[in-house]
Amino acid sequence: MFEHHSRITVQWGDCDPAGIVFFPNYMVWFDSCTSGLFAAAGLPFHTLFPTQGIIGVPIVDVRASFKISAAFGDELLAKTSVTEWRRSSFVVHHRFYKQDALAVEGYVTRVWVAADPTKKGAMKSRPVPREIIERLSTERGPD
Amino acid sequence: MFEHHSRITVQWGDCDPAGIVFFPNYMVWFDSCTSGLFAAAGLPFHTLFPTQGIIGVPIVDVRASFKISAAFGDELLAKTSVTEWRRSSFVVHHRFYKQDALAVEGYVTRVWVAADPTKKGAMKSRPVPREIIERLSTERGPD
Amino acid sequence: MFEHHSRITVQWGDCDPAGIVFFPNYMVWFDSCTSGLFAAAGLPFHTLFPTQGIIGVPIVDVRASFKISAAFGDELLAKTSVTEWRRSSFVVHHRFYKQDALAVEGYVTRVWVAADPTKKGAMKSRPVPREIIERLSTERGPD
Amino acid sequence: MFEHHSRITVQWGDCDPAGIVFFPNYMVWFDSCTSGLFAAAGLPFHTLFPTQGIIGVPIVDVRASFKISAAFGDELLAKTSVTEWRRSSFVVHHRFYKQDALAVEGYVTRVWVAADPTKKGAMKSRPVPREIIERLSTERGPD
Repeated sequence: MFEHHSRITVQWGDCDPAGIVFFPNYMVWFDSCTSGLFAAAGLPFHTLFPTQGIIGVPIVDVRASFKISAAFGDELLAKTSVTEWRRSSFVVHHRFYKQDALAVEGYVTRVWVAADPTKKGAMKSRPVPREIIERLSTERGPD
Repeated sequence: MFEHHSRITVQWGDCDPAGIVFFPNYMVWFDSCTSGLFAAAGLPFHTLFPTQGIIGVPIVDVRASFKISAAFGDELLAKTSVTEWRRSSFVVHHRFYKQDALAVEGYVTRVWVAADPTKKGAMKSRPVPREIIERLSTERGPD
Repeated sequence: MFEHHSRITVQWGDCDPAGIVFFPNYMVWFDSCTSGLFAAAGLPFHTLFPTQGIIGVPIVDVRASFKISAAFGDELLAKTSVTEWRRSSFVVHHRFYKQDALAVEGYVTRVWVAADPTKKGAMKSRPVPREIIERLSTERGPD
Repeated sequence: MFEHHSRITVQWGDCDPAGIVFFPNYMVWFDSCTSGLFAAAGLPFHTLFPTQGIIGVPIVDVRASFKISAAFGDELLAKTSVTEWRRSSFVVHHRFYKQDALAVEGYVTRVWVAADPTKKGAMKSRPVPREIIERLSTERGPD
């Protein structure tokens, strides 16, 4: 399983009046960590999407638990990997560590979708290509 | 059970390059709908927090499923209620409808927390006051 | 000159650890107020853009001054109008009032742009159609 | 003059349905680049604010021009410096480059503020300490 590590510095604007990260920002980071994972595997979304004829990998399900709060100036280590592949969707596992403690954990299910040619503005799921799954399933460790 | 209804117009900046709502924005709306629910029950957070000596109601768990995408200009109807009360936490149920179809559904667990007087920057959970639970448990319908 | 009024309730997540609105959020509101202005004039962007063959009205210049801070729970009254029309751009004037005092004032210059057919991903400015200018220049007061 | 350089990767969620950065996000980056500048000078805000007894450096004026749009996957180089010091405020100059071209330029005026002890929730400007001005005025180049 290919695992990507990235570092997040909590910014002033990420935090709310209680002085801690406003929780939707973790979802923003889930998104950029997923882009980072694919990019680290040599499959950057901004070139992969047009090449594969898809318009994105929208979310259909998210589950997350928040164990330790983070504040302005905190450094988080994010570990990201795909833990499950289905026909046209996949589950991304996110773990954010503050120092050595697991602060946030999430599972996000995303779908491989193309524009639906039969209906303007609609989307249609597509099977995830075999080579993508293989690339993200190698044992190569994090950068 | 007290249920609050509110209307959300999907804005240009809420949407991503695929033309649909960037999913963390649903979490932002979960948050403002929760504020709206308490305000509709006569307990607006911005006066309730200082009165009750708490610093917020941070999230410890979120589960959400996204069934139908929404785009710029769409009108969503949000229905919000508290479906479970525990000692110092509660579960907020969110349903967003696009026309008559359930588009997004979420369950968010929040904790009633005060500043921890023994440790700067730390938080400590507190029992949710009885009168708050009662106020949010009345049968009164939505506005 | 057509002027649009809208009301903004400052949300928890709009505010930073100092307890006041994180200033980029005023820019988010500038954007939704501009959409609101056009919609109030019968020209909602989400139908206007495809009809007119443009892809948006991106910003080329912004000037804003922040006179009074706003906090969670504050109600702002936004007054929005177009104060200048150029060939392919226009200036939107934003004033946000807190109670009766001018809290934030901004001028945002936006360009009427279509996709550039000669270069993928590029944009090309277009003259603003006469009928749009006329519609936004009527004396009709705010709703 | 102390100049700080940082790199920004444009994320999916930073972009709007036209496929370009939604402009308030540049303001979010102005904010994190300002934090980055002070941190690079050995004055990280999250420790500086409590040490100096201030609650933040809120914005009173912003001017920005957007010359070249940026899209998902673009890498921007941000150059940040303080170009003017007044008694209790300062002007931060932001330049974002895409490849070698200046894409966005901004001037943000910020105030050094403490809580006003005479009025709950109010803020009061304070003179910027001499040593802070000196530290940000050294000739040291970017990291």
